[in-house]
Amino acid sequence: MKLHFAKLHGAGNDFVMIDDRDRSIDLSPDQVAFLCDRHFGIGADGVILVRPGETEGASAFMHYINADGTLAQMCGNGVRCTAKWAVDRGLVDSSASATVIDTLSGPKPIEFARDERGLMRAATVDMGAPILEPSQVPTVLAATGATEDGRSFVGDVTLKSPFGNFRFTCVSMGNPHAVAFIEDWEALYDAAFTDPGNKSLATLDVDKVGAFFEPHAAFPEKANIEFVSIEADHLAMRVYERGVAETLACGTGACAVGVAAFITGRSGRVNDVRLLGGTLHIEYAEDGRVRMTGPAAQVFEGDIEL
Amino acid sequence: MKLHFAKLHGAGNDFVMIDDRDRSIDLSPDQVAFLCDRHFGIGADGVILVRPGETEGASAFMHYINADGTLAQMCGNGVRCTAKWAVDRGLVDSSASATVIDTLSGPKPIEFARDERGLMRAATVDMGAPILEPSQVPTVLAATGATEDGRSFVGDVTLKSPFGNFRFTCVSMGNPHAVAFIEDWEALYDAAFTDPGNKSLATLDVDKVGAFFEPHAAFPEKANIEFVSIEADHLAMRVYERGVAETLACGTGACAVGVAAFITGRSGRVNDVRLLGGTLHIEYAEDGRVRMTGPAAQVFEGDIEL
Repeated sequence: MKLHFAKLHGAGNDFVMIDDRDRSIDLSPDQVAFLCDRHFGIGADGVILVRPGETEGASAFMHYINADGTLAQMCGNGVRCTAKWAVDRGLVDSSASATVIDTLSGPKPIEFARDERGLMRAATVDMGAPILEPSQVPTVLAATGATEDGRSFVGDVTLKSPFGNFRFTCVSMGNPHAVAFIEDWEALYDAAFTDPGNKSLATLDVDKVGAFFEPHAAFPEKANIEFVSIEADHLAMRVYERGVAETLACGTGACAVGVAAFITGRSGRVNDVRLLGGTLHIEYAEDGRVRMTGPAAQVFEGDIEL
Repeated sequence: MKLHFAKLHGAGNDFVMIDDRDRSIDLSPDQVAFLCDRHFGIGADGVILVRPGETEGASAFMHYINADGTLAQMCGNGVRCTAKWAVDRGLVDSSASATVIDTLSGPKPIEFARDERGLMRAATVDMGAPILEPSQVPTVLAATGATEDGRSFVGDVTLKSPFGNFRFTCVSMGNPHAVAFIEDWEALYDAAFTDPGNKSLATLDVDKVGAFFEPHAAFPEKANIEFVSIEADHLAMRVYERGVAETLACGTGACAVGVAAFITGRSGRVNDVRLLGGTLHIEYAEDGRVRMTGPAAQVFEGDIEL
């Protein structure tokens, strides 16, 4: 079978995207693994089959298959790329600046701007409301505070490790996140760093420290672990994704960081969150929903024999 | 500029290959880095511009640019892929089973078989004669033995490390290699392994141990470091490439391992060398030359805007 595909990325989170508007494509886990393999295949974090939208006004359905063959409910970077795919191929009216992309976790409204050629470069995705209630994040840690509107949350709870003490704020964006703001880098042990002579976010051994906390008893469904340094005009973060390892970008993680920074009093509602793969603009709006703005880029198109 | 490219690999050593038979393509280091980037670009170990052959009978010239923009003299896996590119595109007479690929280190004779569709799947490359003379490898270690034909070489010289003692045999295939045959895994320290409870080639921390020996004072131009386990019907190896880190496959490294196994009396002249990315068949022939046979595969073709 010969497949035509496009390769897109959002802040370095990258996807092999395939036109499946006639729902004719059925990929085995081995075929997905091959497509995602960075040396023997095309190379990507996941495969997105673009299927017809199902809800009102939806231009496409994002059928997201992880590299291991499992389905993903939602992926913020993937939704932007699916919107770009649809906009650039004329599936969205050329005068429109908004559309909807359906996902397994429901329809996602998207707003976007076009460049002079009519192509989409970036988009804003409504990522929904964060879940703070500890039992629903889920975490077994007890709530330590409450938001202005009276919702209890776990904020800055200290967990010990062989790498030092980390203080976690827990937020679910549909998946569990444990966000560690780090204000005193010297207080962490040498073992936490690849270069202990220069302790900073850049030298933090995210794979090692993240692998310790991801399966911690505090997180019954494990957790994505974010490490954050508060900078003058942005939040710098690195992320250990649950079941993966360190990645260049995690959209829900960036949202969780923006929410955690606000509810712990560290920032306002609007933040630029800088990840290894790029910057995401996160707004935790007054209406309780999180809006994420970020880039979506097509890198190349190709043909592969399966 | 819109570029058409093909993506090929030989034992997992992968290349973006571009038709430059009219010598019109001039890539900046930034463009090469972009093409080789596995998240933001196409992803490859290097870019090969296929230019016209210059010597008699040569079907193509392999202009190999490393991901960092520097030129490579030679790459055994790249030469096979260049031959496949030329054969599959009809640059070699359809009845021929041999050709020559020119490189910066001279013309390389290639022999190959075709499948039922006339396509090349694997090829044998004459990699030339190994250099054993210590000062030319180069290594400052003193020779410990001599081959049947009286050439002195450094064989099984012990170097200490925080990971235990390793015994190195030194071979140049145009680039310096230090080959460590490991017969007693338990004698190495726990620090040498990612899983010290299960000491083996599979759990060896090649990035850490390789990074220690690559710049060792014994190797004035640094060295590629090979770790080898002798199995019933093959040599299993992992490789730390000079200036890179662990890679899936290194053609000259596999040749060096085959030569080192023979001159230290561990094997005959013919070996299957199994790397993470595939198996290379290495023959250290009676005429003193090394012939390497291995796969070459095209994965996909595409178009990218530069």
